Amino acid sequence: MPTYTAPLRDMRFVLNELAGTERLRTLPGCEEVGPDLVDPVLEEAARFCAEVLLPLNQSGDIEGCTLENGVVRTPRGFPEAYRAFREGGWTSLGADPDWGGQGLPKSVGLLVEEMICSANMAFGMYPGLSHGATMAIEKHGTPEQRALYLPKLVSGEWSGTMCLTEPHCGTDLGLIRTRAVPEDDGSVRITGAKIFISAGEHDLAENIVHLVLAKLPDAPPGTRGISLFVVPKFLPTEDGRPGARNGVTCTGLEHKMGIKASATCALAFEEAKGWLVGRPHKGLSAMFTMMNEARLGVGVQGLGIAEIAYQNAVAYARDRIQGRGLDGTKAPDRPADPILVHPDVRRMLLTMRAMTEGCRALCAMTALEHDVSLRHPDPEVRKAADDVVQLMTPIIKAVCTDTGWEAAVAGMQVWGGHGYIRDNGMEQFARDARITQIYEGTNGIQALDLVGRKMGAHAGRYLRSFFHPVLGFIEARMEEPAMEEFILPLSKAFGRLQQVTADLAQRGLRDPFEAGAAATDYLRLFGLTALAYAWARMAEIALGKEEDAFYRAKLATARFFMQRILPETSSLAAKVLAGGGTLKAFEDAAF
Amino acid sequence: MPTYTAPLRDMRFVLNELAGTERLRTLPGCEEVGPDLVDPVLEEAARFCAEVLLPLNQSGDIEGCTLENGVVRTPRGFPEAYRAFREGGWTSLGADPDWGGQGLPKSVGLLVEEMICSANMAFGMYPGLSHGATMAIEKHGTPEQRALYLPKLVSGEWSGTMCLTEPHCGTDLGLIRTRAVPEDDGSVRITGAKIFISAGEHDLAENIVHLVLAKLPDAPPGTRGISLFVVPKFLPTEDGRPGARNGVTCTGLEHKMGIKASATCALAFEEAKGWLVGRPHKGLSAMFTMMNEARLGVGVQGLGIAEIAYQNAVAYARDRIQGRGLDGTKAPDRPADPILVHPDVRRMLLTMRAMTEGCRALCAMTALEHDVSLRHPDPEVRKAADDVVQLMTPIIKAVCTDTGWEAAVAGMQVWGGHGYIRDNGMEQFARDARITQIYEGTNGIQALDLVGRKMGAHAGRYLRSFFHPVLGFIEARMEEPAMEEFILPLSKAFGRLQQVTADLAQRGLRDPFEAGAAATDYLRLFGLTALAYAWARMAEIALGKEEDAFYRAKLATARFFMQRILPETSSLAAKVLAGGGTLKAFEDAAF
Repeated sequence: MPTYTAPLRDMRFVLNELAGTERLRTLPGCEEVGPDLVDPVLEEAARFCAEVLLPLNQSGDIEGCTLENGVVRTPRGFPEAYRAFREGGWTSLGADPDWGGQGLPKSVGLLVEEMICSANMAFGMYPGLSHGATMAIEKHGTPEQRALYLPKLVSGEWSGTMCLTEPHCGTDLGLIRTRAVPEDDGSVRITGAKIFISAGEHDLAENIVHLVLAKLPDAPPGTRGISLFVVPKFLPTEDGRPGARNGVTCTGLEHKMGIKASATCALAFEEAKGWLVGRPHKGLSAMFTMMNEARLGVGVQGLGIAEIAYQNAVAYARDRIQGRGLDGTKAPDRPADPILVHPDVRRMLLTMRAMTEGCRALCAMTALEHDVSLRHPDPEVRKAADDVVQLMTPIIKAVCTDTGWEAAVAGMQVWGGHGYIRDNGMEQFARDARITQIYEGTNGIQALDLVGRKMGAHAGRYLRSFFHPVLGFIEARMEEPAMEEFILPLSKAFGRLQQVTADLAQRGLRDPFEAGAAATDYLRLFGLTALAYAWARMAEIALGKEEDAFYRAKLATARFFMQRILPETSSLAAKVLAGGGTLKAFEDAAF
Repeated sequence: MPTYTAPLRDMRFVLNELAGTERLRTLPGCEEVGPDLVDPVLEEAARFCAEVLLPLNQSGDIEGCTLENGVVRTPRGFPEAYRAFREGGWTSLGADPDWGGQGLPKSVGLLVEEMICSANMAFGMYPGLSHGATMAIEKHGTPEQRALYLPKLVSGEWSGTMCLTEPHCGTDLGLIRTRAVPEDDGSVRITGAKIFISAGEHDLAENIVHLVLAKLPDAPPGTRGISLFVVPKFLPTEDGRPGARNGVTCTGLEHKMGIKASATCALAFEEAKGWLVGRPHKGLSAMFTMMNEARLGVGVQGLGIAEIAYQNAVAYARDRIQGRGLDGTKAPDRPADPILVHPDVRRMLLTMRAMTEGCRALCAMTALEHDVSLRHPDPEVRKAADDVVQLMTPIIKAVCTDTGWEAAVAGMQVWGGHGYIRDNGMEQFARDARITQIYEGTNGIQALDLVGRKMGAHAGRYLRSFFHPVLGFIEARMEEPAMEEFILPLSKAFGRLQQVTADLAQRGLRDPFEAGAAATDYLRLFGLTALAYAWARMAEIALGKEEDAFYRAKLATARFFMQRILPETSSLAAKVLAGGGTLKAFEDAAF
């Protein structure tokens, strides 16, 4: 069975040394955020994840959820673990103190989320979805709605869902058919079918708060006619307890490739009582205000899987003996050397490590901007920080989930045939990780978001929020010999990115098909350049501290990234520059 | 449920037009191999695979195999399908007529294998393993062993296995512990534990012929002390029928990520009666003589999965409507356009298509050389053909299985959330394909085979068997304007490959670690260049025939390959040239 030790040293590094907690402490409500406050939280989370959540990961996968007469049972141990999770305060970590939350910044919350996803990603779906519902009501609900739902959601007594997808539409929500008919008392009656609803029905919480996209009778067609509603499973009584059963039932559970302990429900709404959240017909934009955070969260799922896959691949590579080192025997006292000595195994492990630590760094840097964008007193500073978040969100979602997947797959490969066997747990990581590249907007949609929405917006303002700091960073270090091995490859990749961006901006303006044809390769090129920037910054921190093994490993990993991963940017640039002609020319009938 | 239509037009193209059946017909026993003989075989195989094997693919995955009291049951329908398979003559297609086979060349057999792997890869494991056992006995058995076992194996009445792996060793077979103790009657008693034995026990055939690697008492240590034995499940009676039960039992079935209908057995040999096959202590080299064919076969598994994943991704992309074309509405009469219009979807589909058709071409070209290497009367011609097979085998195994995996994964992505749902069948392709990158030598081992064994062998003779024809092909077409768009990128990639090969040969000679550090990237670079060569050859055939949609699509796909896939070679070359320093420098303790 896989093991997991939270990478606390690296988490503290990205939080305190890379992103920097000094800047965090200038924010209202974050004055106390430092090692004294954060370390115990991280350590307790690490313990909880390793001791409570991890042991349920494999059994949860094997057992899955069951549906009987509309009742969904989560796997054995899940209800108890959820209760402990709730009582440990993990549902309220980042929530507003007004509703019973602990008010910790995203910069800390993301690290805890990573641990949860490493230990038991399927479990993490339940509180994760509640978080989205909390935000929706906090941001768009009436004072009454907030007072009714938020304390329950924050405490974890109730959980939440996001009901968007329908059988015939997911990406294109303009097509949804679920209807909301207003009643005289200000409520609505909701009727329709939703699918792929994570945590749509389960036995962990006493009530479930569905946030539902539906159309009012007078709705304009398409995405401009979608409204957001709150639809509780049990209608709250006067004193805020779960009362009568509402007209929403679970009609089916999906059999999925992975995250089998997460109940993915088909829900039937039959004249279910609901209430408008936010303004009529503005439901989609209300949803989109939560999207950045949800997408960062999915990125962190990928990161979490990458970390545990790496740890267990390393453990196997140390333990398994097979063959001899190509440059000589390494363990003469044993019948063979540990496979860790083989260069191709080291290549796989270092690729996993460099991508994982790079993604963690990128998440931490972006989480800090996220905190600034929400909390800084100066609206100009908030806006500048939000620009970074807007730009980096699709990149983090796609790159971190690709990393989770690739690391899980590489982890299987290190394990050889044993990686393909269920009992060893490595293949579960791959099956679980796969969904992160698909949901919350496929990674192809992230790429379109980057080239379609973010690239051109505000005359390139989002882009500049990345390009200017990177350029400044490079220029300030051109004369530093110790940084040369990092700055040169970074500046080469950055040059490619700038060239390709200029080319694509022109072509994409003339023909949006060209932007779409380049999107995925462009996002990857952007992501690798952002990782190179993060690695150069990390290397700079580590330089001069080589007596400490942690910093030595940082530098060695940074070198590996620059020499063996970053060259991918040359191909990506060439693919983007090749244009979309061959995609367009292919006849539809010939596929 | 997925559908499958065998790509007969493309199969005939690679067989007749690309590889060329004229050359095949010059070989003894192949004089009649032409459309009149081959087309009905392919058509009947296509029908059988679509009608009999495909309907059992998903149910076999869900049901899996069961083990009770040492008896393994395959999923419902498998015994009947196997009987029909056998009676249809599919087990004997390529076998020697001396033993009841039909003597068809590999060039035809591989196409049928591809169809089987598309329709039901797990089913194909059973006859596939028999094929390996047949070859082992045919090549290394005594006349008595051949007379006893081959007719039964060829007819499919009996099936075969290859028992190599043990719990503590797979790649490094020098470590095996299974013992063979000679008896006075010339037989041996075999004792030991084997794992991961495909078709090790099942209910499809009346007897199972195990080919077992074990050590004789006087065996030298390591791989030079391994012998090969035949160990039947039931000891054959005087008249060749299954008699007394031998001391080999199935002690466990693995729960795997995929190919769940294939029984992956742990076998216990307890003083099981067996007989030496070939010479004592030469078992590993006997196994290796079969390895090329087995590895080509695994490559074809990848190809088969890639094809069916592509077909079903295209079907969904035509059917699913979501959003509007970026360059304008394409289906104004419908609420949205089919997702086939989206450039990123087309990019995924064309990548799948270009890699799949390219791999099929490479397999066909290599299968022809394989046939020549076995059948040509002139030993010099045989040797030259064998050089190509030796060189291309690790490349085909790795590139085709990577293609199977990547296509299956891309197919899921085209399906979005629905691709993650078991009932839709797309995720099964990914789970099934994953093992092909691992077994029969992981793809990392293929890469080591290429740089370690094939690159330097015979002063580069294997390499020249590829480099010379490609160089000749390029040079002969430098002045042809119509070929320029294919020849230029091919020659660029080929130049990179030559440069990198020279560099690596030097560095690898000085330090084998350097060869190992480059191996995987080098193999991929080599594979893409070989695919570019295949695509240029296919484009040349298609040029001038553009009135036919088939050739138009070939040309369009060739252009896509050159412009959007082949640029990967630039990064791969850079990674190889970066060397293995960063892999070596990383401290073991720091992983």
